[in-house]
Amino acid sequence: MEQIEGGITAVDGFTAAGTFAGIKKMEKPDLALIFSESVCNVAGVFTKNRFQAAPLLLDRKHLRKKKGRVIIANSGNANAFTGARGGRDAGAMAEAAARALNVPIASVYVASTGVIGEFLPIEKITGAVPRLALQLSRNGGRAAAEAIMTTDTFPKEVAFTGKVGREEVRVGGIAKGSGMIHPNMATMLAFLATDVAMEPRLLQEALRQAVDRSFNRTTVDGDTSTNDMVLCFASGQRGKEIRSKGTAYGQFVVLLEAACLSLAKMIVRDGEGATKLIEIKITGARSDSAARRIAESIACSSLVKTAFFGEDANWGRIVAAIGNAGVPVDPEQVDLSFGPVALVRKGVYQGKDAESKVAVLLKQKEIELTVHLHSGRGRADFWTSDLSLDYVKINAAYRS
Amino acid sequence: MEQIEGGITAVDGFTAAGTFAGIKKMEKPDLALIFSESVCNVAGVFTKNRFQAAPLLLDRKHLRKKKGRVIIANSGNANAFTGARGGRDAGAMAEAAARALNVPIASVYVASTGVIGEFLPIEKITGAVPRLALQLSRNGGRAAAEAIMTTDTFPKEVAFTGKVGREEVRVGGIAKGSGMIHPNMATMLAFLATDVAMEPRLLQEALRQAVDRSFNRTTVDGDTSTNDMVLCFASGQRGKEIRSKGTAYGQFVVLLEAACLSLAKMIVRDGEGATKLIEIKITGARSDSAARRIAESIACSSLVKTAFFGEDANWGRIVAAIGNAGVPVDPEQVDLSFGPVALVRKGVYQGKDAESKVAVLLKQKEIELTVHLHSGRGRADFWTSDLSLDYVKINAAYRS
Repeated sequence: MEQIEGGITAVDGFTAAGTFAGIKKMEKPDLALIFSESVCNVAGVFTKNRFQAAPLLLDRKHLRKKKGRVIIANSGNANAFTGARGGRDAGAMAEAAARALNVPIASVYVASTGVIGEFLPIEKITGAVPRLALQLSRNGGRAAAEAIMTTDTFPKEVAFTGKVGREEVRVGGIAKGSGMIHPNMATMLAFLATDVAMEPRLLQEALRQAVDRSFNRTTVDGDTSTNDMVLCFASGQRGKEIRSKGTAYGQFVVLLEAACLSLAKMIVRDGEGATKLIEIKITGARSDSAARRIAESIACSSLVKTAFFGEDANWGRIVAAIGNAGVPVDPEQVDLSFGPVALVRKGVYQGKDAESKVAVLLKQKEIELTVHLHSGRGRADFWTSDLSLDYVKINAAYRS
Repeated sequence: MEQIEGGITAVDGFTAAGTFAGIKKMEKPDLALIFSESVCNVAGVFTKNRFQAAPLLLDRKHLRKKKGRVIIANSGNANAFTGARGGRDAGAMAEAAARALNVPIASVYVASTGVIGEFLPIEKITGAVPRLALQLSRNGGRAAAEAIMTTDTFPKEVAFTGKVGREEVRVGGIAKGSGMIHPNMATMLAFLATDVAMEPRLLQEALRQAVDRSFNRTTVDGDTSTNDMVLCFASGQRGKEIRSKGTAYGQFVVLLEAACLSLAKMIVRDGEGATKLIEIKITGARSDSAARRIAESIACSSLVKTAFFGEDANWGRIVAAIGNAGVPVDPEQVDLSFGPVALVRKGVYQGKDAESKVAVLLKQKEIELTVHLHSGRGRADFWTSDLSLDYVKINAAYRS
């Protein structure tokens, strides 16, 4: 497996484009189009928020057939909490793309991110689609990545290549992170393309597994938006269709997970106000699910996150977060290390010398925190950002 | 029911004192003693954190007999994550108090708050107890409230009086809030005294109910410490013992809940960096428990809390938090008001005029947010603080 240049259009058969359609107030790209020259198998994972934005309702419907060729996505407006008109607007976006590209509406997937509770300027969008379709190109992946940004500070794209069965398969993707926008909401979008040939139900399972080990293992502020989605288009241009969970399936999952994890880490690194990426590794838990709950409890603790911002080896807050995870743990079995330095061993604080070594590590931009619970074989990794003054400034002052 | 002056010593038969024993580095009160002239029935509620500090293990043991006369509590050191020696130190605190006051050890309850993972300076504590015992007085409630403070900015005490059956009963209490202290942890302590006569199992149930509707309905940062506890001493000096859940029991619960809620609100108001107290009222939910989950989801959302700090009527974040509560809700049934001003009705945003009225309300120190879900009769109230720049400053920079 190897990382290659580019993003979603690094995969043969995919073109993309991005433009300013007039949704955002500032003249910045706000409309993205992604196109596959052949019909793809499609898998999708959507937010668990009970309030689902209009585009998600449309996409779920289109996903029933598990086929697709187009993604049209806008930033600047989430088309969420917009009722029946929101549904019609999402439909109009799909229809405009379908018409411009001469494909069935059901093969178009729609995504929106931005302001909640306001109606889309739908004429601006449908008006921009024809020229956007003309701009589609193999070099357009980055433009698409830019057009889905909200308060992201950099576009997020990645591509990997690796052996899947006998074929050299590619997976490429773009994503946007949690950014607060007037007036509202953090949305995570990720679009992945691959040339693998895979039966759609397997593709869905592969995506669910990859998302669960990447996007679902990262947090910036613990909120889940009404618009979050991950879509994966598989063109099937490489080799024979994978129809069972053999070696090739496993190889593809590894590739897909690498792409997802890479994008997920970019999102955390670009979390609002984030100055650090913290990798939390839990081992020796009673089960993987126990490990994950402990990892998540640490990753979501405001006290832990502010301590990281302060570059403070505040192990008491970490220990308290472990105790709050709602799973049984034995305090006298807890090891806790920052990078290679053990700060707590079998529940015993290792003293000021160890702490001063940790203090040096905490000045880095990427920090690894390992917790060993010595009570089983459960493991989990999780990624979080620190909670900084800028996080509060960005989120408190956005509209003032 | 009426609020009266004073705190825990507003109740006949209780004396208290506070002093500087030398646990804190700065010369500020750090050791509190509370004494009942007669044997009390005792009820207690303890943290659900899996890691319980040494004093809690001792208190749980003493609570088996449901009797008690003394509380000894220190600040500046949590005696948590201190292993066997921590247990011996908690025992030594109880023993010193028992000896000075000539009561059985089993009637003494111990509490600690402060640094985690460091051993208590136990000689300083046991050395200070005899003179602290001599200082016990009916005016000492405030001194005790001061001696349990960590980064609290004001001492917290309250007393109420009200009819319970034929008797005029008093409930008084002191508390301390979540304050971060070198190097660690937010601890909530509350001690309540009453002259009611109540069978101990009923007293325990009354306390659990009162705590559930007060301390358990408030959040500053969502973390639960290893040391949180609420103790209630009932001297039984007023009237006949209440032995069943009749009118008198109900009247006492109301009184106890008023005292607990008053202390809980003080804690939120004094939350680290907090500039606002936000009351969240959920009505029309499918059940009380659904209402509570929704209230808690809003109250714990960093995005919502930073918006309140920014005095921003960011209803999209609130709606997203409602959708994230994990209970079914219908977006088209949601009403959302700030004070008397409706900003969302049946899922529809009420426009800029309503929002500008809300903007004025948001400048106040106390804000009421009401959400009506129109899907049942479930209700819940919850209290939270805003998430401010000072919260991050206090928690990031404490040790630097």
